[in-house]
Amino acid sequence: MKNIDILGFIAAALTTIAFLPQLVKTWKTKSAGDVSLVMLFTFCTGVFFWLLYGIFIQSWPVIAANFLTLIFNLLILSLKIRYE
Amino acid sequence: MKNIDILGFIAAALTTIAFLPQLVKTWKTKSAGDVSLVMLFTFCTGVFFWLLYGIFIQSWPVIAANFLTLIFNLLILSLKIRYE
Repeated sequence: MKNIDILGFIAAALTTIAFLPQLVKTWKTKSAGDVSLVMLFTFCTGVFFWLLYGIFIQSWPVIAANFLTLIFNLLILSLKIRYE
Repeated sequence: MKNIDILGFIAAALTTIAFLPQLVKTWKTKSAGDVSLVMLFTFCTGVFFWLLYGIFIQSWPVIAANFLTLIFNLLILSLKIRYE
């Protein structure tokens, strides 16, 4: 794996797992009032487009990272709506 | 511009502007208790790596999208710390 690929892998991993602490915090506190619903909708839509993009260019790293990111953010979105 | 590039452009635009509503909400409400500090740190680090990646592969869309995303998230992070 070239250095540049390692850099991309680290970036993808960080911007994917970053949403896990938010998911855990929202689950624990049962509160998401300060989290923007518009952000969650817009971000989920964008990540879905990245997922389509990854499928079209047949890039497994893009597919895997955005699939997980989409799952995490859809879960945060559902908790946000539930606790609203 | 090929269809696939348009898809990537839309994805990049959405996952960049998505953070603007969160920034405005946090600025207006002066409250970010429900937003995870660990998420913000991890996400900012990951976006910074994407920025480096974009510079290395000399891709202006990756550079532009991640530069803006980093700015928005660093602002949200600073407001989060200020109102904590």
